[in-house]
Amino acid sequence: MKLEKLVGERFKERPSDCVVDSHALMVRGGYMKYVANGIFSSYMPLKRITRKIEAILREEMDAIDGQEVSFPVVMPASLWEESGRYGSIGKELVRFSDRNGSPVVLGMTHEEAAVQLVREYGNSYNKYPFMIYQIQTKFRDEARPKSGLIRVREFTMKDAYSFHTSQADLEEYYDRCHKAYERIFARAGIPEVVSVASDSGMMGGSISHEFMLLTDIGEDSIVICPECNYRANMEAAENITEYTRTRDSEPLTKVSTPGVKTIEELCSFLSVSESDTCKAVVYQRNSDDSYVVLFIRGDLEVNETKLTNYLGYDIHPGVIDCECGLCAGYIGPVGLSAKCTVLYDSSLRGMNNLVCGANESEYHCTGLDMERDLANIEYHDFAKIKEGGICPVCGKHSVTISRGIEVGNIFQLGTKYTKSMNMTYTDAEGNTNYPIMGCYGIGVGRLAAAICEVHHDDYGPIWPISIAPWQVHLCAVRSDDAEVKAYANRLYEELTAHGIEVIYDDRNISAGVMFSDADLLGVPYRAVVSPRNMKAGIVEISSRDKSLKSSAALDTAADEIAAVIAEALKK
Amino acid sequence: MKLEKLVGERFKERPSDCVVDSHALMVRGGYMKYVANGIFSSYMPLKRITRKIEAILREEMDAIDGQEVSFPVVMPASLWEESGRYGSIGKELVRFSDRNGSPVVLGMTHEEAAVQLVREYGNSYNKYPFMIYQIQTKFRDEARPKSGLIRVREFTMKDAYSFHTSQADLEEYYDRCHKAYERIFARAGIPEVVSVASDSGMMGGSISHEFMLLTDIGEDSIVICPECNYRANMEAAENITEYTRTRDSEPLTKVSTPGVKTIEELCSFLSVSESDTCKAVVYQRNSDDSYVVLFIRGDLEVNETKLTNYLGYDIHPGVIDCECGLCAGYIGPVGLSAKCTVLYDSSLRGMNNLVCGANESEYHCTGLDMERDLANIEYHDFAKIKEGGICPVCGKHSVTISRGIEVGNIFQLGTKYTKSMNMTYTDAEGNTNYPIMGCYGIGVGRLAAAICEVHHDDYGPIWPISIAPWQVHLCAVRSDDAEVKAYANRLYEELTAHGIEVIYDDRNISAGVMFSDADLLGVPYRAVVSPRNMKAGIVEISSRDKSLKSSAALDTAADEIAAVIAEALKK
Repeated sequence: MKLEKLVGERFKERPSDCVVDSHALMVRGGYMKYVANGIFSSYMPLKRITRKIEAILREEMDAIDGQEVSFPVVMPASLWEESGRYGSIGKELVRFSDRNGSPVVLGMTHEEAAVQLVREYGNSYNKYPFMIYQIQTKFRDEARPKSGLIRVREFTMKDAYSFHTSQADLEEYYDRCHKAYERIFARAGIPEVVSVASDSGMMGGSISHEFMLLTDIGEDSIVICPECNYRANMEAAENITEYTRTRDSEPLTKVSTPGVKTIEELCSFLSVSESDTCKAVVYQRNSDDSYVVLFIRGDLEVNETKLTNYLGYDIHPGVIDCECGLCAGYIGPVGLSAKCTVLYDSSLRGMNNLVCGANESEYHCTGLDMERDLANIEYHDFAKIKEGGICPVCGKHSVTISRGIEVGNIFQLGTKYTKSMNMTYTDAEGNTNYPIMGCYGIGVGRLAAAICEVHHDDYGPIWPISIAPWQVHLCAVRSDDAEVKAYANRLYEELTAHGIEVIYDDRNISAGVMFSDADLLGVPYRAVVSPRNMKAGIVEISSRDKSLKSSAALDTAADEIAAVIAEALKK
Repeated sequence: MKLEKLVGERFKERPSDCVVDSHALMVRGGYMKYVANGIFSSYMPLKRITRKIEAILREEMDAIDGQEVSFPVVMPASLWEESGRYGSIGKELVRFSDRNGSPVVLGMTHEEAAVQLVREYGNSYNKYPFMIYQIQTKFRDEARPKSGLIRVREFTMKDAYSFHTSQADLEEYYDRCHKAYERIFARAGIPEVVSVASDSGMMGGSISHEFMLLTDIGEDSIVICPECNYRANMEAAENITEYTRTRDSEPLTKVSTPGVKTIEELCSFLSVSESDTCKAVVYQRNSDDSYVVLFIRGDLEVNETKLTNYLGYDIHPGVIDCECGLCAGYIGPVGLSAKCTVLYDSSLRGMNNLVCGANESEYHCTGLDMERDLANIEYHDFAKIKEGGICPVCGKHSVTISRGIEVGNIFQLGTKYTKSMNMTYTDAEGNTNYPIMGCYGIGVGRLAAAICEVHHDDYGPIWPISIAPWQVHLCAVRSDDAEVKAYANRLYEELTAHGIEVIYDDRNISAGVMFSDADLLGVPYRAVVSPRNMKAGIVEISSRDKSLKSSAALDTAADEIAAVIAEALKK
């Protein structure tokens, strides 16, 4: 098509509200437009990209025996009450009433709908295994949408649900889907995506993986051990600490620490290192504001995902009021009399000679010995692993931490939904069982943005040909030159006749504007017709990623470009 | 794919809640499943049908220079406040607040979103004309969803919006789109769809057409004149009546009509025909319950669409209470003292010797002369046209009335949205103008159901090959017979290698069950491998619509079937 007719504006200035490059470039290039916080419309170039991504998703889902179906966006609340999630999910689940006052929700994920669709069908073991998937709009009322298409409220997602009669069968299918995901990301131009063990969160189930594209702008922290290839989301990574009691325990001694409230002030005041302190971190339960006090080694941070999973309820950072009995800044494990849930991180296990709060304003204690001074306490892993920390698999001090964008996830759900929603089948022996489920998601828009994030330069995206909005960007420089115009028209016709997707810029504008528009559209190959090239009897051919810079004779240009495209599509 | 693995249940009994055949067959055939009132999930066969319909829609929209974009499902209310529709549309527009308390709506149509997307882009005349479209989920909170996919609350729609700098340009494009719609319906297997003039309703604008598939289960009444080919939706059809004053007017005389309240009772009591009466029909304004009294010739019915359009506000049938001054059953135009809006239908113009209410309980008047007895009244067209009525174009008594399903609509919107939302462009002379819009919709699911409605028999749908879920239904009857199984497998492979979409039933079940399942899936061509056929060295080939019943030799069957499919696809 002709660029002149392409709806959408392209411009040079980076919009001030764009933090990440993919967002800035997709706004500057006329791919998307802001409608509301975390809600966008797409122009044709983005729509073409997402449709190509969707085609790849369909092919790979079909290749692992997936059946495309569709579930509603608006669902009755009763369906989510069956699974128990109507009550357990927070405000990100949109709830409202229809005109008849019936409570409904907007689908943010479709486990309930999937079970509802196949609950009667899947009544006998011989129907299994099967997988159904859809590519559909979802809405998740995110508290903090950001980074353009990376974290939005409304999005298109490929979500798949598999049903099995044994854990072994689920695991086999899970593995097939893992491989399909690898193919999907490779085909979409980001073979470098890695899968990491993840926390299952609100989905339930036990084993799950996220597919991460490593990039500094990623929202997730990824723990990687280069020694043994262990990979996990920070949220799910076990933290291991070592401690050797190097000297005898001093007696527990109250010391005056006037005005000292933070760990930094304390360490400086007493000349101890943070790892020799026992820090109290206070939370409150969302539902009733009751207190949770977590003791953890002073140099470590709390992994709130692990904490929430352990507690089984949502929490927020605690605000200590006068009546609660907690002495802000001076909370310690010995003599803590406030009514609260008290937890201990594994990092404190066996430690001695620690500094901790004395539960009295302006006082701390030294010489805390966890074993001597505290009776019958349990330790759990609540800490964030740190760079250089101990790999939970190989045990070496080899942990590195990277940032990543989650571009896909797969979950072994078990029977969480089939049990709660009473979906059963009869096995070969006539017994009634609950099917075992897996679920598998990829966000289409986020994937497009993630690809842009790792495939761009200062001038625009560099789209992989598999998902590029067009394959060839044809520039007629000085289209007011009759010879240029006539040949460019002919080349456009010839390329189109070859089945090549061409965006044709025959506007009578400067080469500079023409090329910067082309950079913003990020089409992988560019053909330039110009008076100088005409004189030389050639068409310039180059690739957006600069790996190709070549020329072709006028008469054979279309064939040569077609050969380049065919070769590129093969990869 | 193998039918054995197809998710979804097929069964024989017509579900009791299904009124129309397409609904019953699509439930019985495992195409769709009820989730909530007017909300359904789709199984793979329906998904494959709708994807093929969507592909046709894309091709035809692209062919008229449409650019595929996407708009959000969830939109800020502010966008709809700009156009004024946030307040003017009733409960079918879902309104709720997001987690931050911001009012939002669910998109039931996207004129506002379309203007928002191109408002800045379309700032100069040289960008025009352009058309953008999407294929996306919509939600309309219908009061009475019914007939399966014909009238739902959640649906997928292709909606297109064109922008122009002159009415002439809009009309030219409108015509192109009209032709594209004809191609779409022809390609989808229902070339018999007719376009009819329609009422523009809440969309605004003046000229609009609906594309109607004529069928008895249709919700719309379609006025057709076989003489001049005039076609209109009943809602939009002008009603013309003739009246010649055949005798002098009698004096207006009050007569006692005890217990006589309805027109039927009145005509019987006084031995007059309904067309010699002046009937009062009472409505109330939705917003304040104020009364509207419409006088109309007794044999005619009120066209409430025309009435609402004239009034400019919504109404409901009136409930006459004691204080309103209206005398229920005896309302007449002479001496009507109640505080209400009084309207006169054109059918009464010039009439005399009419019977009407006397505005007094148990009394009517005879001898009403509209000209003599009522001063300075205006007449407007508020009546429904009747079978055999006068064609508003050719003037013959030739009107026929059919039922139809609306499968598409096109509107000339004018500047309703661009003006209210302040979208302007600069013309060649430097003046600022509002672009002129058109909009063009087709509901995907309703189209699928409508096709089923006119292409089915008692046993199932008969899908046109252009949208059929598969092209060939391969039946291996007695798949426990090794020879049958081996040959059917081979044929399946060969057909698939030909690029044909095959659903393969190799279940070891009775031929009866196998064929009734095939009937329900409605695949256009069927190939039957069986012990008897193997013995005869043939494969039976037949079409679902019974127009083809043939056979092919085993070795050439795949090629022959491929040729049949290729031929069918050409049509």
